[in-house]
Amino acid sequence: MITSTLRRVLFWMVLLPGIVCADPLPSWQPGDTKRALIEFVEGTTTVGSEDYLPRSQRIAVFDNDGTLWAEQPYYFQLAYALERAEKADHSELPETLAKALERGDIATVLDSGVEGLTALLALSHANLSVADFQADVGQWLGTARHPQTERPYTAMVYQPMLELLSYLRDNGYLTYIVSGGGADFIRVFAEPVYGVPPWQVIGSLGELELVEEAGRWVTMKRPGVAWLDDGMNKPLSIERVIGQRPAIAVGNSDGDYPMLVWTTQGAGPRLGILVHHTDKAREFAYDRESHIGKLDKALDEAGPRGWIRVDMARDWRLVFPPQP
Amino acid sequence: MITSTLRRVLFWMVLLPGIVCADPLPSWQPGDTKRALIEFVEGTTTVGSEDYLPRSQRIAVFDNDGTLWAEQPYYFQLAYALERAEKADHSELPETLAKALERGDIATVLDSGVEGLTALLALSHANLSVADFQADVGQWLGTARHPQTERPYTAMVYQPMLELLSYLRDNGYLTYIVSGGGADFIRVFAEPVYGVPPWQVIGSLGELELVEEAGRWVTMKRPGVAWLDDGMNKPLSIERVIGQRPAIAVGNSDGDYPMLVWTTQGAGPRLGILVHHTDKAREFAYDRESHIGKLDKALDEAGPRGWIRVDMARDWRLVFPPQP
Repeated sequence: MITSTLRRVLFWMVLLPGIVCADPLPSWQPGDTKRALIEFVEGTTTVGSEDYLPRSQRIAVFDNDGTLWAEQPYYFQLAYALERAEKADHSELPETLAKALERGDIATVLDSGVEGLTALLALSHANLSVADFQADVGQWLGTARHPQTERPYTAMVYQPMLELLSYLRDNGYLTYIVSGGGADFIRVFAEPVYGVPPWQVIGSLGELELVEEAGRWVTMKRPGVAWLDDGMNKPLSIERVIGQRPAIAVGNSDGDYPMLVWTTQGAGPRLGILVHHTDKAREFAYDRESHIGKLDKALDEAGPRGWIRVDMARDWRLVFPPQP
Repeated sequence: MITSTLRRVLFWMVLLPGIVCADPLPSWQPGDTKRALIEFVEGTTTVGSEDYLPRSQRIAVFDNDGTLWAEQPYYFQLAYALERAEKADHSELPETLAKALERGDIATVLDSGVEGLTALLALSHANLSVADFQADVGQWLGTARHPQTERPYTAMVYQPMLELLSYLRDNGYLTYIVSGGGADFIRVFAEPVYGVPPWQVIGSLGELELVEEAGRWVTMKRPGVAWLDDGMNKPLSIERVIGQRPAIAVGNSDGDYPMLVWTTQGAGPRLGILVHHTDKAREFAYDRESHIGKLDKALDEAGPRGWIRVDMARDWRLVFPPQP
């Protein structure tokens, strides 16, 4: 006979923690997607499971723009570059770009090609130290607001992905960001927002120089892109920085396609996850025709290759974290 | 009155572990060097100490050749390249280099300059996948022997440095290798020998390409050096990969000088350590005049900059690990 005290003890000590801890992904809707994520993590971390991976092989790589935070109407780092460019000296810019910038014609700025965008980026991303650049980015992130949602950009991260990052780390995975965005930029907020330390951020790299200023050696950002971490370059940067094939790759665009293919072709358990922006009401809806975050080939291949396609409208209870 | 049983209990439970645990660096001779190492680690990891560093700032970077393992009579990776080159097709080599190789004239091979060495490296370090390259390096490390000591190369690591790596990790430091040697090469043995996982190895990089072989995507090593991780490039690769200035830098040559300067110029507690090869009897003695691991400018600057100079003959009880 179980006494009422014992029942109470059992409830508080055994059942309640079980109920509370049962769902590591509360913002994911119950269903196939959520089940597949949990099954993969449990399979690779349960001793004795045929899919068990030792900790040294538990590496997960996440794209950033459109995968961990939003990327519309254009990349947030570009929003930073545009705002800073407004106040900068335009005499070094191509004339059409300078004029477009002066009349706030962002469509033309975005259409200015690699040369134009490189010149634009140089206004805010070059000829200052990494430390000064990061201080300025931090200041901007503290005050800038998204033109449509009016949220701070760091409040446009995806709550379900924050939960997935934590869930993986709680299960011994290292969570890396592998982004087309600049590593110096992402490192400003990756740790407080995603829990990802600077050394687990892989991204595009500007030219960099070690210079002496008043006897002190400083890393200075210089104009020009030294490494564009997108497409075929993502598996290469993973090989170079991490030194092994990840177990999990998460992306949302064709720029992530090579990383997803390469990751999931490894021997043993591998997981590819593709975030599909299907939620016009709560976020944005775009795929094959989008200039930012184009998702075409990877969408065709997700099924045949056995990747999980995350349908944001269907699979996510919540998109952005609740605002205070 | 303490009974003899209680004395015995006290000895086994309190005093013996104290004695055993008291020395985290048993292969370091007592003295100023060892004291300075321990004081820095205790100062940066004791809560309330004015030098306390949170874990996120406990980064230590170690050069490899001449700092963690020996580098004479020439870099061990070069020994690998030479042995593999002997059996390779020499028709792509410059004629003088091919002839020198065929008559075993290593001095001439070493004098063949950047172009010659690049051609030599290409014979063993290019046109195979990273995985195949690493399998071959692993095989070589298992059988090759150092020409003078007849030890396996991985038995020519420095026992005191193995202890320092472990001691730092036990105190929450991340231990990175930042080497002029190839990252792909070092990653083969860094984890089993040093306890350093692949993603904490930064090194020189060859050209790399993602290619499809029978439907599978593979990272292929190509001829040419994409990044020579030496000298001024070491602080840059640390900035790019780790994303912050380390607290501790350890090196042994002028190639480590910029890394030591940049690290120790940071605000707050910083430690520079310079390994000085002074032990002809147990290892090798060389500094200003050496072609391999030249130590000149950094030796002059160690004192004025407050770095610890490790005198191998004086400071190390043991150089290499005892052989089984």
